[in-house]
Amino acid sequence: MASKDGQNDTEVSALNEEIQSFFKSAPPLRNKTEITTKLKDFVLQHSSNLGNGRATRVVCVTSGGTTVPLEQRCVRYIDNFSSGHRGAASTEYFLKAGYAVIFLCRRGTCQPYCRSLPDDPFLECFEFTDDSQIRVLEPHSEAVKKAISDHRIAVEKGQLLKLPFTTIFEYLQMLLLIAASVGRLGQHMMFYLAAAVSDFYVPWNSMAEHKIQSGSGPLDMRLVQVPKMLAVLRKEWAPLAFCVSFKLETDTMILLEKASAALHKYGMHAVVANELLTRKEEVVVVMSNENVPVHRDKTDASSDVEDPLIKLLVDKHRAHIADSA
Amino acid sequence: MASKDGQNDTEVSALNEEIQSFFKSAPPLRNKTEITTKLKDFVLQHSSNLGNGRATRVVCVTSGGTTVPLEQRCVRYIDNFSSGHRGAASTEYFLKAGYAVIFLCRRGTCQPYCRSLPDDPFLECFEFTDDSQIRVLEPHSEAVKKAISDHRIAVEKGQLLKLPFTTIFEYLQMLLLIAASVGRLGQHMMFYLAAAVSDFYVPWNSMAEHKIQSGSGPLDMRLVQVPKMLAVLRKEWAPLAFCVSFKLETDTMILLEKASAALHKYGMHAVVANELLTRKEEVVVVMSNENVPVHRDKTDASSDVEDPLIKLLVDKHRAHIADSA
Repeated sequence: MASKDGQNDTEVSALNEEIQSFFKSAPPLRNKTEITTKLKDFVLQHSSNLGNGRATRVVCVTSGGTTVPLEQRCVRYIDNFSSGHRGAASTEYFLKAGYAVIFLCRRGTCQPYCRSLPDDPFLECFEFTDDSQIRVLEPHSEAVKKAISDHRIAVEKGQLLKLPFTTIFEYLQMLLLIAASVGRLGQHMMFYLAAAVSDFYVPWNSMAEHKIQSGSGPLDMRLVQVPKMLAVLRKEWAPLAFCVSFKLETDTMILLEKASAALHKYGMHAVVANELLTRKEEVVVVMSNENVPVHRDKTDASSDVEDPLIKLLVDKHRAHIADSA
Repeated sequence: MASKDGQNDTEVSALNEEIQSFFKSAPPLRNKTEITTKLKDFVLQHSSNLGNGRATRVVCVTSGGTTVPLEQRCVRYIDNFSSGHRGAASTEYFLKAGYAVIFLCRRGTCQPYCRSLPDDPFLECFEFTDDSQIRVLEPHSEAVKKAISDHRIAVEKGQLLKLPFTTIFEYLQMLLLIAASVGRLGQHMMFYLAAAVSDFYVPWNSMAEHKIQSGSGPLDMRLVQVPKMLAVLRKEWAPLAFCVSFKLETDTMILLEKASAALHKYGMHAVVANELLTRKEEVVVVMSNENVPVHRDKTDASSDVEDPLIKLLVDKHRAHIADSA
C-alpha cells in the first residue's frame, strides 16, 4: 500500500529493520551525556518564547562529510568530500535572520565567519611584537576581527551550539539525539541537512579488526548501503519540523530528477539541488509545487549563493509555521 | 639475481614499469613550477656551507595521510588516518638540532609548535576587547605565543619549508621533485618518511568520471597496489641520502617482523616500528645491526617519544655522513 509520500508500508518496515541494525552495530557515542545536556539547555533557552508569537526559530545545520571506517582500529576510512563551506556560510545567514543554530559539523571543516581567512589562520594571521604584544597581520586584520568577535558573540549568547562528528556512526546517532531533543519546538524547528553523508558503509561487526595487509594483490571490498534516514527523520523523529535536504551530483543530466525523487521519497519540504562544479554560483530549490533557481549576485564579488538561499528557505519556513497554526 | 638489498633485477624492472604507469596516469601537479622554485632556493641556501665541515643538514619530513580518490570529480575518497602529530613534533626536534626541514604535510594536519593547542586555536584562543585590541585568552597564552613566534622564526629564517599535499598522486610527485632537488646535499640529506601513505589506489584512467550512484545494492570496489616507491627513492632518486621509513601496525605480533622486512627490501637505513595504540609512548628503531627501543620519559608529563627518537636518528645520520667522508 503506497502512502502519500511514495513509500509503502512494507518498505518502511524493511527500512526500520535496517536502521535498527545500523544503530545496533554502531560503536556507542562516547560523549552522549554531555551532548544530551547541551541540547536540553539549548532547546530550553530557545523554547521560552513559544506560544507568544515571538518564538525563536531553531535550525540544525549539518555540515562537512562523514567517514566510513574500513577497520575497527581505524587506520583507513572512506571519506566524503566537503569543505563545510556551505554549512558554515548558511549558519551565518541563519544567525543573521534571528535563528538559533545547532551546527552539527565534521571536525576540522570550515567554521562560521572563517570563510575569508587563509587556510591556516592561526599560524598565518598573527605575530608577536618585540614587547610580547600580539598583532594581527595585514591584510587579514578586519577579517580576523570579524571572525573572532562574531563567532564569540554567537556562542556566548547561546545562539550557536557546535557539535562535531567524524564518522557516519557518530553523525547519525547525534542527528537522532538532536531530533529527540527538539520535539517541543514543533514547527519552529528546521533541519538543513547539508552534510555529505556516506551512502555506503562497512558494518562494524563485519569489519577487519586489524589493519588490512597489503602485499597480496588487489584489494576487493564490499560496502553495504547506509539506510536512508531522511524518511525516518521526517516522519518519525521530527514529524512537525521543516526539513531541507541536499542533492549533490557531478552529472547535471540526472540532478533535478534525483532531487525531485528524493523530495517525494523522503517527504522533504525542499531539496537543494547542486552540481559539484557550479555549486558556489547557483542551486535549484526543488519543492512540491515549484522549482526555484537561486543565483549568487554576480555584480558583487563578495556575494554568495547561501545569502538568497537562506532568505528563500526562511520565507518557506515562515509559511510552514503559519500553515500549521 | 639477488642484489645485496634483497630485490632481484627482474623485480626492480617490474617495479619501474609499475611506477612509470602510476606517474603517467596521475593528474599533473598544478603548482609544479612554484614548488620547484621554492625547493631550488631552499637547497641553494642550505648547501652554501657544504665542504667546509659546517654544512647544514637537511631533512624532508613527510607527515599526515594521503588520500585515494574513488571518482575523477572527487566526491568520495579513501583516506589514511594520521593526525600529523608525529611529523609535526619531529620537525620541531629536527629544527632544534640545527636541521633545515622540508615539511611535506597533508593539508589541515598538525603543524609544528601547535601540538599543545586546542582543536581550533584560531577561534578558541583569542578575543577582542572593547577598544578593539586583540588578547590571548588564558590558559593558552604561553602556548599561543610560543607557537606563533617559533613558527614564524623558522619560516622567516628559511629553516622550514612547508609543502602541503592531499592525494597520493600529489604526494608521490612532490616526493620525487624533492629528491630530484636535493642531489647536491648528498649524505647531508635525510628522508624521514612519517606520512601514512595509501597502499591501494584506483588508477586515474579506470576511475568513474561521475559520482558513484547508490540505490542499486552493495558497492564492490577493486583497488590496486600503489607501487613501493621506497626502494626507488633509496636507490635511484636519492642514493646518498639517509633514509628512515615507518611501519605502523595494529597487531604487535607482526610489527617487528614487517619492519625488518621493509628495512631489507627497501634498503632503508632505519625503520621506525610503531603500534597504533602505544605509538605515543614507545617505538622501536629497526636497523641492520640492532633494534633500539625508544621510550618517552615517563617521569615528565610533557615529554614525548619524538625527542629521544630524533636524538638517536641525528646521531645515526652523523655516523652516515662520517662513514662516507
